[in-house]
Amino acid sequence: RIDSARLWDSLMEMAKIGPGIAGGNNRQTLTDADSEGRHLFQKWCEGAGMTMGVDAMGNMFATRAGEDPEALPVYMGSHLDTQPTGGKYDGVLGVLGALEAVRTMNDLGIRTKHPIVVVNWTNEEGTRFAPAMLASGVFAGKHTQDWAYERVDHDGKTFGDELKRIGWVGDEAVGARKIHALFELHIEQGPILEAEGKDIGVVTHGQGLRWIECTVTGKESHTGSTPMHMRKNAGRGLALVTELVHEIAMKNQPNAVGAIGHIDVYPNSRNIIPGKVVFTVDMRTHILPKLNAMVEELMERAPKLCADIGVGFEAKIVGQFDPPAFNEGCVKAVRNAAERLGYSHMDIVSGAGHDACWINDVAPTAMIMCPCVDGLSHNEAEEISPEWAAAGADVLLHAVLETAEV
Amino acid sequence: RIDSARLWDSLMEMAKIGPGIAGGNNRQTLTDADSEGRHLFQKWCEGAGMTMGVDAMGNMFATRAGEDPEALPVYMGSHLDTQPTGGKYDGVLGVLGALEAVRTMNDLGIRTKHPIVVVNWTNEEGTRFAPAMLASGVFAGKHTQDWAYERVDHDGKTFGDELKRIGWVGDEAVGARKIHALFELHIEQGPILEAEGKDIGVVTHGQGLRWIECTVTGKESHTGSTPMHMRKNAGRGLALVTELVHEIAMKNQPNAVGAIGHIDVYPNSRNIIPGKVVFTVDMRTHILPKLNAMVEELMERAPKLCADIGVGFEAKIVGQFDPPAFNEGCVKAVRNAAERLGYSHMDIVSGAGHDACWINDVAPTAMIMCPCVDGLSHNEAEEISPEWAAAGADVLLHAVLETAEV
Ligand SMILES: NC(=O)NCCC(=O)O
Ligand SMILES: NC(=O)NCCC(=O)O
Repeated sequence: RIDSARLWDSLMEMAKIGPGIAGGNNRQTLTDADSEGRHLFQKWCEGAGMTMGVDAMGNMFATRAGEDPEALPVYMGSHLDTQPTGGKYDGVLGVLGALEAVRTMNDLGIRTKHPIVVVNWTNEEGTRFAPAMLASGVFAGKHTQDWAYERVDHDGKTFGDELKRIGWVGDEAVGARKIHALFELHIEQGPILEAEGKDIGVVTHGQGLRWIECTVTGKESHTGSTPMHMRKNAGRGLALVTELVHEIAMKNQPNAVGAIGHIDVYPNSRNIIPGKVVFTVDMRTHILPKLNAMVEELMERAPKLCADIGVGFEAKIVGQFDPPAFNEGCVKAVRNAAERLGYSHMDIVSGAGHDACWINDVAPTAMIMCPCVDGLSHNEAEEISPEWAAAGADVLLHAVLETAEV
Repeated sequence: RIDSARLWDSLMEMAKIGPGIAGGNNRQTLTDADSEGRHLFQKWCEGAGMTMGVDAMGNMFATRAGEDPEALPVYMGSHLDTQPTGGKYDGVLGVLGALEAVRTMNDLGIRTKHPIVVVNWTNEEGTRFAPAMLASGVFAGKHTQDWAYERVDHDGKTFGDELKRIGWVGDEAVGARKIHALFELHIEQGPILEAEGKDIGVVTHGQGLRWIECTVTGKESHTGSTPMHMRKNAGRGLALVTELVHEIAMKNQPNAVGAIGHIDVYPNSRNIIPGKVVFTVDMRTHILPKLNAMVEELMERAPKLCADIGVGFEAKIVGQFDPPAFNEGCVKAVRNAAERLGYSHMDIVSGAGHDACWINDVAPTAMIMCPCVDGLSHNEAEEISPEWAAAGADVLLHAVLETAEV
């Protein structure tokens, strides 16, 4: 079993970097705080006897040597970047839980046939640079590196320039590494495990996602002196599409979700009727044809709703992945580990996207979930218990040991 | 008659300061560009033989001496600040039209019994520091100077600090000046004069306004892993209130308007359900009981709509004025001037708020409007013709000369 106190200490230590304003974290990707977090992680990995490699997307790979020099490594990890108002565990638990698993192997003198690699993927969150899971996506061949480098943040800075600025462009070619298997531990970010009273979620599938960036175009004009019948109010387009997205998601229950999280209003002045509103619709479900049908319905009905009130509607997909089904062997290793350790567990679908979803396309992959309080995540108040964290890291350790062959 | 070419040149010259991105202006109040515009205006006034006084709100008063040292001055003017994406004429025509009227009096050697004052009121637009017409409001005793100084912009800077920073805190006590009468020339900012083919709008009344800042409170959580029935989506609250405001305005046709121009979404991330949305409702009509009933309906129905979807609703009024009825004598002077000059004219209600609306409470006041293309204003594409501008300034000159007694 892992050292629960040591794991918790590391989580609290990392949370000091890029503190939020309400007890959580703002350690967005490619900020100075992200760089500081990477340095601390590197120091810890080297302290545990591992060797750090970094690729051209800034993905970090800390290797613990195996006994068979020919054997492909078993990977475990997640991401250290956070939302602007994020929690202390989303992603971080998966990286530091993996580090803790290696520290425990060291304590117990456990050797494995396959090398072990602890990984920190760059820009999982996708808030600053859309889409999410950008660097694992390049690793898995979903995007080109050039395209990823050209992603821009809200201030017009590019991913490539910012990665260089913080000093984390590594020399490894992205995706060159071969992977025997990968395990990602993550908090559920939803309410199911807590409600069912289970310690461990054995993740069998994930939801697919579509991010649809919509632009509603009206006409900027004076809120006081423009008669109602002459207005083209882009804000009303936003309102109608907000309710349409909700309606489509509700119609596809259970297991579908939809909302608008990001909205920019132009010119955003109290006495100017919005001339343009740009916003991103987030739609998900784990059934691919359903997901595609939801997007189709949006694309068909939103332009009509907008045309009816005299405003224009355009949309493009800025992020997407299809619902993944994880590798049966790896999923079984997770279930076996939970059984063996005596933790209560259930099969579960991941509501969120994860780096493991991309890697699943190029190597055998599985995920382990632990509960979080109230299912709350992407919120500074995100909380887990030390016991939940320890159970997750224990299962990670055992699943990896089984796969890496002790 | 005024010198139409000289007036147009001055308008174009002023428009070079704080250029927008689409042919209009971004010369927001208390920015460096605002200060630069003030210096140019001061230079022009002094060049026309006037003496500049500035009060503690930064209001600028350029005086042309009268023949009777005891007589109170006749004021004319408007504002030089613009919206972030504003036009070249909103406010500016009223200030530079007044300057042109004085230049014409100089050319023709016209003397008046009453002194003439050309005024530039600070922060008419209210975009950077709400409410609109802030400094004329302090002048008219609607707000205290201390309260005005404490208004904060989006970056947390105060009106008082910014006025000081740009160097325009004058030594005159605000509102100490006595006014014989005031005339404000302004573009209509609406479509009526152009549609009716009239050169001049004789403004008899104005719309009253209420700015209601609303806060909808939901719960920040993950867009992917939060099941639909557990969400508290503040964005839906915005959507429902957007449509409610529209409905209330439509119900009160003709002559009522309503919209939401300013919206801030928190934390504004693609994969976070909005936990909070703050926005300002703008409601207007020129019938006071109707205006109050509109606000009441909003305050009664919005909290219920929000409660039904599990989010909170709070609101407070951050800007307001009651519908003004302008001074009959001054209105008559405007109508007479248009008649005498042979310009086509009609009585009109001002859709927008103006500094003249506040001054109307402390001195005899009237307004002159000229058409603008497509009724478009608060838009960089705002446009007027040199002929419309000249007609407005001619009527201003004649109304002021009649009132100031040649
Ligand atoms: N786990 C997580 O929050 N990933 C970000 C991508 C997503 O929105 O699902
Ligand atoms: N004229 C003008 O746009 N004034 C600003 C105040 C208002 O919104 O009516």
